[in-house]
Amino acid sequence: MAVRAAVAGASGYAGGEILRLLLAHPEVEIGALTGNSNAGQRLGALQPHLLPLADRVLAETTAGNLAGHDVVFLALPHGQSAAVAERLGPDVLVVDMGADFRLQDPADWERFYGSAHAGTWPYGLPELPGARARLTGARRIAVPGCYPTAVTLALFPAYAASLAEPEAVIVAASGTSGAGKAPKPHLLGSEVMGSMSPYGVGGGHRHTPEMIQNLSSAAGERIAVSFTPTLAPMPRGILATCSASAVAGATADSVRAAYEKAYADEPFVRLLPEGQWPATASVHGSNAVHVQVAYDESVGRIIAISAIDNLTKGTAGGAVQSMNIALGLDETTGLTTIGVAP
Amino acid sequence: MAVRAAVAGASGYAGGEILRLLLAHPEVEIGALTGNSNAGQRLGALQPHLLPLADRVLAETTAGNLAGHDVVFLALPHGQSAAVAERLGPDVLVVDMGADFRLQDPADWERFYGSAHAGTWPYGLPELPGARARLTGARRIAVPGCYPTAVTLALFPAYAASLAEPEAVIVAASGTSGAGKAPKPHLLGSEVMGSMSPYGVGGGHRHTPEMIQNLSSAAGERIAVSFTPTLAPMPRGILATCSASAVAGATADSVRAAYEKAYADEPFVRLLPEGQWPATASVHGSNAVHVQVAYDESVGRIIAISAIDNLTKGTAGGAVQSMNIALGLDETTGLTTIGVAP
Amino acid sequence: MAVRAAVAGASGYAGGEILRLLLAHPEVEIGALTGNSNAGQRLGALQPHLLPLADRVLAETTAGNLAGHDVVFLALPHGQSAAVAERLGPDVLVVDMGADFRLQDPADWERFYGSAHAGTWPYGLPELPGARARLTGARRIAVPGCYPTAVTLALFPAYAASLAEPEAVIVAASGTSGAGKAPKPHLLGSEVMGSMSPYGVGGGHRHTPEMIQNLSSAAGERIAVSFTPTLAPMPRGILATCSASAVAGATADSVRAAYEKAYADEPFVRLLPEGQWPATASVHGSNAVHVQVAYDESVGRIIAISAIDNLTKGTAGGAVQSMNIALGLDETTGLTTIGVAP
Amino acid sequence: MAVRAAVAGASGYAGGEILRLLLAHPEVEIGALTGNSNAGQRLGALQPHLLPLADRVLAETTAGNLAGHDVVFLALPHGQSAAVAERLGPDVLVVDMGADFRLQDPADWERFYGSAHAGTWPYGLPELPGARARLTGARRIAVPGCYPTAVTLALFPAYAASLAEPEAVIVAASGTSGAGKAPKPHLLGSEVMGSMSPYGVGGGHRHTPEMIQNLSSAAGERIAVSFTPTLAPMPRGILATCSASAVAGATADSVRAAYEKAYADEPFVRLLPEGQWPATASVHGSNAVHVQVAYDESVGRIIAISAIDNLTKGTAGGAVQSMNIALGLDETTGLTTIGVAP
Repeated sequence: MAVRAAVAGASGYAGGEILRLLLAHPEVEIGALTGNSNAGQRLGALQPHLLPLADRVLAETTAGNLAGHDVVFLALPHGQSAAVAERLGPDVLVVDMGADFRLQDPADWERFYGSAHAGTWPYGLPELPGARARLTGARRIAVPGCYPTAVTLALFPAYAASLAEPEAVIVAASGTSGAGKAPKPHLLGSEVMGSMSPYGVGGGHRHTPEMIQNLSSAAGERIAVSFTPTLAPMPRGILATCSASAVAGATADSVRAAYEKAYADEPFVRLLPEGQWPATASVHGSNAVHVQVAYDESVGRIIAISAIDNLTKGTAGGAVQSMNIALGLDETTGLTTIGVAP
Repeated sequence: MAVRAAVAGASGYAGGEILRLLLAHPEVEIGALTGNSNAGQRLGALQPHLLPLADRVLAETTAGNLAGHDVVFLALPHGQSAAVAERLGPDVLVVDMGADFRLQDPADWERFYGSAHAGTWPYGLPELPGARARLTGARRIAVPGCYPTAVTLALFPAYAASLAEPEAVIVAASGTSGAGKAPKPHLLGSEVMGSMSPYGVGGGHRHTPEMIQNLSSAAGERIAVSFTPTLAPMPRGILATCSASAVAGATADSVRAAYEKAYADEPFVRLLPEGQWPATASVHGSNAVHVQVAYDESVGRIIAISAIDNLTKGTAGGAVQSMNIALGLDETTGLTTIGVAP
Repeated sequence: MAVRAAVAGASGYAGGEILRLLLAHPEVEIGALTGNSNAGQRLGALQPHLLPLADRVLAETTAGNLAGHDVVFLALPHGQSAAVAERLGPDVLVVDMGADFRLQDPADWERFYGSAHAGTWPYGLPELPGARARLTGARRIAVPGCYPTAVTLALFPAYAASLAEPEAVIVAASGTSGAGKAPKPHLLGSEVMGSMSPYGVGGGHRHTPEMIQNLSSAAGERIAVSFTPTLAPMPRGILATCSASAVAGATADSVRAAYEKAYADEPFVRLLPEGQWPATASVHGSNAVHVQVAYDESVGRIIAISAIDNLTKGTAGGAVQSMNIALGLDETTGLTTIGVAP
Repeated sequence: MAVRAAVAGASGYAGGEILRLLLAHPEVEIGALTGNSNAGQRLGALQPHLLPLADRVLAETTAGNLAGHDVVFLALPHGQSAAVAERLGPDVLVVDMGADFRLQDPADWERFYGSAHAGTWPYGLPELPGARARLTGARRIAVPGCYPTAVTLALFPAYAASLAEPEAVIVAASGTSGAGKAPKPHLLGSEVMGSMSPYGVGGGHRHTPEMIQNLSSAAGERIAVSFTPTLAPMPRGILATCSASAVAGATADSVRAAYEKAYADEPFVRLLPEGQWPATASVHGSNAVHVQVAYDESVGRIIAISAIDNLTKGTAGGAVQSMNIALGLDETTGLTTIGVAP
């Protein structure tokens, strides 16, 4: 029997990507599609790449329109998920692709988002130790942020193996779709093509506490994170360049062994052969994570780099992967590790 | 029982794309992968986006290595397919993604390619009248060129309905992957980013006779074609802007009706709603063709525009679609009309 | 004594480009800078590439703020120039980079812009026959549209030499800056990168009557124009691919001779050597126009292609060039034919 | 009297950029242009953006062809400059845009380049303390590498003011022109568009010792550098994101004060107003350096970010700036701080 899924916020980039993936998912039937400012419009005018859904019309995002589904994906601006979720019954699987339920510490939420904390849901990064058990049978899932997905998967093996000092320095480049579909001058094609620029420098990016939460959990101690995001002239993709000082006694071999062990059985994470480095184009449209790690002896630092598609593994693919686990389906159902390149 | 497929020329862009599609094809098992200069290398180093095949090693392109398969896809430089094909038995389905067997008139071949004509195989554009019957059970298929695919699907309904005068003016923009993976200075990223440039102007592009062949066949008379290809700063996609004078008596309604009729039942071609125009991003990675047509009263011309992915519908997707027909599978097996956007 | 220049609309792309050029103009001193929604802001926040003006603050666009200058450049939304211009004295040179005063036929204006025609000013395309005489000493100048600049310079020599039939088919690709800086969803980097798409198809683009006006003037008869603009994934540049049937008796030699004659003494237009085709990257940031022409014997058509920078020669560079003529300066003062490439 | 300049290696990207700048330099007359594989070709075919030089023909790179000039710019593959330079007289100003004479420690050279060290020339980064005195009257100049230029200018004020601990972590994104014009598969437009990828990870990039040399000199102690370069989908530009732990007692105010002091009188380096961050588009084609710095209290790190044009300030603009100083011209002659944007 098919899993019936609704998508709230179907006109944005996260909404479009979850629909792209659900259309390819053999166990899912797509139910209600909702939007707010775009309610009443044909999806074909908003998401012309989703040809099979072109004639579907967006309903308004109301609990009534989202009722009667097995799974509801929320692709809403932050702060709006709680009100919708509480109107959906406890047996409905609610998968929130926004930030609202990711953070454990209410103080973090309040500092970075300036509003009251809505709560914490099981965190949808199956590759983290213990995560799959928490996701199995869950009916509420908080999908990780795109940057925290890339950064956590690049660095947690080093921390889980106690190989890195507790300060990580991260510079990540993201495609523009990470900034959403609401038009703003600095996101115009004229502005972003041919340009690299940083933003949220100095500890201010909202994804920082989530990275700290994940890495600290893996390390068993508080990890400090210096995170600088940059906007890159491409529509999709995150390249996260992460480093930390190695602890005394760490070697190139022990570092590599830690990563090999962490990812030996992961279906979506690939530690590349030595000497081959990730490129975002290789994971375009796929749920794969390409990871490479090096030990720079001259400075005693571990350099770990990951590439993901921010909309797939970084948002909607991670959401489907976690949904699969929650529902008892094979974790890889409907997902691919094959990128669309060149 | 699975169809066992080999790919000759697996390291290039057409080879990579056919592998990407075959990996998603439920009836196909991927057999031998061959290359020439890259024989002996891991596919993961050459096509890092094809993660499931990363550890496969390229063999040399020899008849021996290609033997024992149900289907052999040839992604070879032009002029090399015949020698390989004749060593493969008549029961093997050989799908040539090169130019060698597309043209019916040996004089066209000789003029544009400067060598002896190898022959003519059933032409793999199923949307053309009569094509599906010719492809059913075929064991040799010539996959159309990328530009001819886009142009023919934009214009043939006008010619088939006798609505257009026999001179078509075509300007098409192509992503750079259409030029292949062999490194040349003018294809460097530094050169193509931020630049539009024409090439093969004035009737010299090798795809011109193929367009004439297709459109003339639809029209029942010789169609003259003025074709100007341009290189666009994107990796994939073709946007073909085509026009022809309308015959006396043609109207906006009769033109639209001809296109609606031509594409009513086509699984991969979508005539967009009036007022919506194709964009190559919407078909990125998909086998879909987005088409729109207008009648410009002020000049009495029909303007028909199509968008395809040059590597998918324009090469490897068209190849799989034709293979499906030849083998008696559902024509859409393993193919999608869903693009990867944004 | 320096020419004192004001710019109304200094926060947009045309405004930024005129400032970029005026900063390099040895005879000009930059006076008032005005905006509307951005009045009161530092220019450094709006146009960070114009470092020498970073600390200038935008005033409101009022006649008072624009008074007291020798030249006033208007970079305003269409329909707003007349009200400003009539408050400026007849001795002030007013250079309108908008559309308001380009068209000679009020009916054209009303049909394409839906408002009352403001009038017709001397047309700032010096390369057109007779234009320099009309611009010398002028105190009102209408700067041509970007597409009409590219198209007219590609085609008028053929019409001036009576070599082409009176129907031109034009497909042009433009960088996204041509669409301005006001944020709209379809202009987001996420949407435009990797995509080619047409717009204004079927005779509806507002630049069409201006092309007809120019080509008809050169030909001495009414020229019909089929014009299809497309949006290309680059910030700047126009590539205009233009063609028309050749008249009986035209030859490749007579066509080339017409272009050589037309452009022998033009400081900004370069007919490329035979076999070399224009690329927009080569004119990036420059006032140069690269032109090439071919005669396609197989269809009897003349194919003429031009590349310009839409913001330089297509807008602000054309404005400066015309200002120079009007003020009796050397026409090339402050302008370059050197592009920024790669 | 004009300075007569020759350019060896005029067909590459550094060669093209030095010619673009020299064409705009009021004191320079361009003499011999040489190449090797391209000797005998018209420059218009190789550098079509340099219209005023289109009809110049490349000579071979020989001492004879380079003789008789006041200045010779070398844009040669590394290892080739010494042989050419020693044939040019001691009174000729030789400006090497390659790596050969940048490093002071022969062991560094041998380790990173694998050949014998040619020597050390005055280092052409005028903004470094003491550099202008060393450049004045010099007849041999080693132009800094593009990455070291961006990184040094981002970080040296922190080290000169003793505000940062002696380990810097740097992640920089470069446009593809930094990799040169020799065609290689990974530099194809098809590969780089839409992709971010690292290279030379783990301390192996040849620009690392040059960064260490500069920062150590500013600090008065050995600075360790972790440097990760990444290739970004744009033709030009470097964004360098640099950080280091602050020393005890450093504050946001003391950090900013150090940068304000360092750049108060620099004609090409601009410390942006607080809250505004650099973007490479803003310095496209200009010799400007945009710098911003922040103090991240949560981790106690100084984050300094710079944007340059890798071909202008990062190569040819830096060369012209140093030439001006060497020859006693105003340092800014022929150079601009105005970028070509958008």
